[in-house]
Amino acid sequence: MISAGIIGGSGYTGGELIRLLLHHPEAELAFVYSTTRAGKPLSSAHPDLLGVTDLLFTGTADPGVDVVFLCLGHGNSSEFLKQHAFSDRTRVIDLSNDFRLKEDAQFGGREFVYGLPELNREAIREARHIANPGCFATAIQLALLPLARAGVLRETVHVNAVTGSTGAGVGLSPTTHFSWRNNNVSWYKPFTHQHLGEIRQSLHALDADSGDLLFLPMRGDFTRGIFATAYTPFNGSLAEAERMFLEYYDEAPFTVVSDEPLQLKQVVNTNFAHLHLHKHEDVLLVSSAIDNLLKGASGQAVQNMNLLFGIPENSGLNLKGSIF
Amino acid sequence: MISAGIIGGSGYTGGELIRLLLHHPEAELAFVYSTTRAGKPLSSAHPDLLGVTDLLFTGTADPGVDVVFLCLGHGNSSEFLKQHAFSDRTRVIDLSNDFRLKEDAQFGGREFVYGLPELNREAIREARHIANPGCFATAIQLALLPLARAGVLRETVHVNAVTGSTGAGVGLSPTTHFSWRNNNVSWYKPFTHQHLGEIRQSLHALDADSGDLLFLPMRGDFTRGIFATAYTPFNGSLAEAERMFLEYYDEAPFTVVSDEPLQLKQVVNTNFAHLHLHKHEDVLLVSSAIDNLLKGASGQAVQNMNLLFGIPENSGLNLKGSIF
Amino acid sequence: MISAGIIGGSGYTGGELIRLLLHHPEAELAFVYSTTRAGKPLSSAHPDLLGVTDLLFTGTADPGVDVVFLCLGHGNSSEFLKQHAFSDRTRVIDLSNDFRLKEDAQFGGREFVYGLPELNREAIREARHIANPGCFATAIQLALLPLARAGVLRETVHVNAVTGSTGAGVGLSPTTHFSWRNNNVSWYKPFTHQHLGEIRQSLHALDADSGDLLFLPMRGDFTRGIFATAYTPFNGSLAEAERMFLEYYDEAPFTVVSDEPLQLKQVVNTNFAHLHLHKHEDVLLVSSAIDNLLKGASGQAVQNMNLLFGIPENSGLNLKGSIF
Amino acid sequence: MISAGIIGGSGYTGGELIRLLLHHPEAELAFVYSTTRAGKPLSSAHPDLLGVTDLLFTGTADPGVDVVFLCLGHGNSSEFLKQHAFSDRTRVIDLSNDFRLKEDAQFGGREFVYGLPELNREAIREARHIANPGCFATAIQLALLPLARAGVLRETVHVNAVTGSTGAGVGLSPTTHFSWRNNNVSWYKPFTHQHLGEIRQSLHALDADSGDLLFLPMRGDFTRGIFATAYTPFNGSLAEAERMFLEYYDEAPFTVVSDEPLQLKQVVNTNFAHLHLHKHEDVLLVSSAIDNLLKGASGQAVQNMNLLFGIPENSGLNLKGSIF
Repeated sequence: MISAGIIGGSGYTGGELIRLLLHHPEAELAFVYSTTRAGKPLSSAHPDLLGVTDLLFTGTADPGVDVVFLCLGHGNSSEFLKQHAFSDRTRVIDLSNDFRLKEDAQFGGREFVYGLPELNREAIREARHIANPGCFATAIQLALLPLARAGVLRETVHVNAVTGSTGAGVGLSPTTHFSWRNNNVSWYKPFTHQHLGEIRQSLHALDADSGDLLFLPMRGDFTRGIFATAYTPFNGSLAEAERMFLEYYDEAPFTVVSDEPLQLKQVVNTNFAHLHLHKHEDVLLVSSAIDNLLKGASGQAVQNMNLLFGIPENSGLNLKGSIF
Repeated sequence: MISAGIIGGSGYTGGELIRLLLHHPEAELAFVYSTTRAGKPLSSAHPDLLGVTDLLFTGTADPGVDVVFLCLGHGNSSEFLKQHAFSDRTRVIDLSNDFRLKEDAQFGGREFVYGLPELNREAIREARHIANPGCFATAIQLALLPLARAGVLRETVHVNAVTGSTGAGVGLSPTTHFSWRNNNVSWYKPFTHQHLGEIRQSLHALDADSGDLLFLPMRGDFTRGIFATAYTPFNGSLAEAERMFLEYYDEAPFTVVSDEPLQLKQVVNTNFAHLHLHKHEDVLLVSSAIDNLLKGASGQAVQNMNLLFGIPENSGLNLKGSIF
Repeated sequence: MISAGIIGGSGYTGGELIRLLLHHPEAELAFVYSTTRAGKPLSSAHPDLLGVTDLLFTGTADPGVDVVFLCLGHGNSSEFLKQHAFSDRTRVIDLSNDFRLKEDAQFGGREFVYGLPELNREAIREARHIANPGCFATAIQLALLPLARAGVLRETVHVNAVTGSTGAGVGLSPTTHFSWRNNNVSWYKPFTHQHLGEIRQSLHALDADSGDLLFLPMRGDFTRGIFATAYTPFNGSLAEAERMFLEYYDEAPFTVVSDEPLQLKQVVNTNFAHLHLHKHEDVLLVSSAIDNLLKGASGQAVQNMNLLFGIPENSGLNLKGSIF
Repeated sequence: MISAGIIGGSGYTGGELIRLLLHHPEAELAFVYSTTRAGKPLSSAHPDLLGVTDLLFTGTADPGVDVVFLCLGHGNSSEFLKQHAFSDRTRVIDLSNDFRLKEDAQFGGREFVYGLPELNREAIREARHIANPGCFATAIQLALLPLARAGVLRETVHVNAVTGSTGAGVGLSPTTHFSWRNNNVSWYKPFTHQHLGEIRQSLHALDADSGDLLFLPMRGDFTRGIFATAYTPFNGSLAEAERMFLEYYDEAPFTVVSDEPLQLKQVVNTNFAHLHLHKHEDVLLVSSAIDNLLKGASGQAVQNMNLLFGIPENSGLNLKGSIF
């Protein structure tokens, strides 16, 4: 059994990790660290865990676990690692954006590998520590990687992606208020979202001449999920594009190409990414749907843990969806 | 023209009052006082007002207006009136629960009349100052007043009422977070909601032997509206009950008895209360739907202003609904 | 492995059964019968199954499976069983209301046991065929059974329960239209819901003098879940009531008493029923939350299958919730 | 008073027209024609009208009214006009797409002017009959017209727009089912929406060299409103762009440029279009929000009526919004 600890377990991604690890056949949840809730039951923050576990949040982290997941919010992971020592064999899987870019990937003697299995599966298998990708970054990269590898992503890509409210975290703000967000739509950070860096890094790793992205992130009036569209000029046929995607994702257990147009909910509560291709004149439209907390965060973190420890990639991730 | 001021204009009830008064044919909005937003345009808090008005929030209240509406939250109205003087002729319409009970109705030389037109229309016409009813209190009283007046409300009344998120105000809290409230339902303050006092006071004024209420308030996953059900033993026929209601509300321009079962949305964005009666064996079920911010707050406040100043009761209140 | 067939697999309960059985460690999905979709992939009706299974709907039912689940809508199960023969050893678990009442429980040589494990666990273990309870009936019985068994449910019980749109099935009607149901609330069948029969039958089996129910069913503007409240006079203390519930549900793996007030979403996407007790003066309020498609239908059907076949009651039912 | 008739009054746009005309100070609702509901009260289809009007749907259309609004669905208006005669002075305002394109604008002796006041105000004032624009077409044109007139819209425009469920009409279909649409997002008709024709026609009328549009229409999980974004290369400064918009819309009472980023709800239940400009590097992003049933349909139809009859353009259209 892999012993796993979670740092920062009262938020959304921490909560999903708890749920996944409690049901994981080859891992056991050693501790869930929370400075604000130490001593209280996990169900005090996550009432769905009532009857599932009697575990309490802890105020200390066991330094000898096999793997520790950091769910601390951007900028806090490096600070935490400075102040807390772990054993040499403890792997770190970080869910923040602190270590995703190559220039940030060496920290305190650790090297972090960018944990998108569809890009880096073999490197992840050999890695010790993982920088888990961003949610938008996952949805958008999965829509574009096969094109970049084929060297046909040379012009501007137009990306629109809408995320649920859990993407903004558990913190309170005017735009997370129900009265504001219900039945509402808006954009934020137009063309400057912080995930662009990791997306560009991956595309350029596959093709140094990849085109740039114009990405408009949207806030949707739902709780979970990301629905992304990306289109760009494409000279080939739809069948050629589909072949590129099918080949690229041939080994990927969670990334599936659909013949039918997508709806967001078909992936909610699962670790799947569903993709769909559509051609209109010389434009190729790729659609991509993920659950932002699973394939976009905690599910992918477990997928990375599975790869790190050499167990089946989908272990503990066969989740029942909730399309209705 | 009636000159009107609003104290506390950045919340939900203040916002609705601004909208109503800007369109009112016989009133003009003299000022909207806000300590936190003084100097900023009203549209900074209420962006739907962009293009409607260029008014700014003010940090001072004109003491000479004809009427001032207090939208300050419970407990703050009395404090405000202690610290701010108004002219002798300035009427005060208070939307908090500070002055609704008879024992609280005299304050600082002012006498507040309980402003439920369906109970107190003539007294309101003669009044100088108004304690505007609570939202749940309005929906529930309208379902029960005809029965109390007829002396047939002698046993326990079972009330369930669900309110939208605007009922909880603009403040941030875990239960106003979109991720929490979306698709969720819960109750709060079971059988002890603070509106019970004013409801009991009204029922006892009509019939000292009125039965008591068991009222379970619910939080719904929508923004606006209250849907209330109240049932109690009733010996008469459905037709007799309907006659009581039709007679009681004969003069009430906004309270209408429907032959068809209700849905909440049929009153949203209007000042109407829709009622429906149903008989099952010896039980009479009365359903009641209002918009919590209009008939349950700001719309009723304007209705009271109209009565105070002797203009048509529905002036400025012919609002287009938004059932879809 | 238990070989299982599903009759009527394109609706909501059929879809949930497919998902549960595909992941069940001790069952295998032998066929999913659908007259309208025979030959098409399961993912044509349930796109979340893309990448999970390549199974096709069939137009014939294998008569030799170990268990067959009927998801046919009320009134259609008996008709189906008249026209289709199964082997002697094939167990039938019916999700309609055709066989729930004692007077309907013998049909075509089969005897159906009412499949509420919290009421009938031992009888289910010995049974051959199961009449799976209704969704409202499950939520409400779980709130009341311990009181009935203790003989303290002798007065009228006041029940209000709100259900999601999946409770109404996949059929189209004006009240299932998004434009109608979004942000809306309404009741239906006041005090006469068809689940009252099975509820009364169970309560009377525990205590012939059980009081009657006044049950008001509500339509909520969410997709999944039932939130029920039931209150009645109770002479004992809250601690006494809690003891009754804890004892009654001591062996029940999915029915849990919470010290904290409930919210609907804490059970969504799980097979749990969460209960909460609250005492106000001489009134005991019991709240109950379930997922209408899981503990209220397909999850409970699998729980019954597990009991029928002598495998762990929670096998295949450790589901990750989706509180956010 | 302008006497007005409505043909097809039981759907969403017909319902909004009823509401608007009942409150219009210079129009009176002469009849609402409905083949399916003749003889029933308007409130049978629109329960929010209970207490507002006792009018009944009629099975005949008075041929002598001043203006008749056709709310019949695409393709049905021409058929209706073939079979029903109106007086010479009766103006027709058609809400379908039957007469919007120049090649369709002459029909049965009538000439239809395209009724987008922000494009055609003077022509509308002189017109006899109006082809009312489409909802997406309105939102998108308002975002682009000033740029086309200035001759700076020469490259491809990338448009994404999400609409509420009322945009799909009152008909039942799998994608209008609440269980499907709640919390869901999807696209439809990618790059081929039927409103592209009228948009292109308007842009070309202002600048024959206008660039083309790539428009991806989205289905949102809300009831009312359209939120559109359009971006394109732009060489000038943000201030120059804003000046173009302010000048272009100087006389437009309902089209307002906001300094702040938009949210959809700020225009819901109003006849306003709110626009916002943002510059990123050499890209100009124009955002546009309207209520699809008001500025996108029935509100604009009344605005056109006002212009046709020479009364103030905003008469009867000062509506209270419902941002919360």
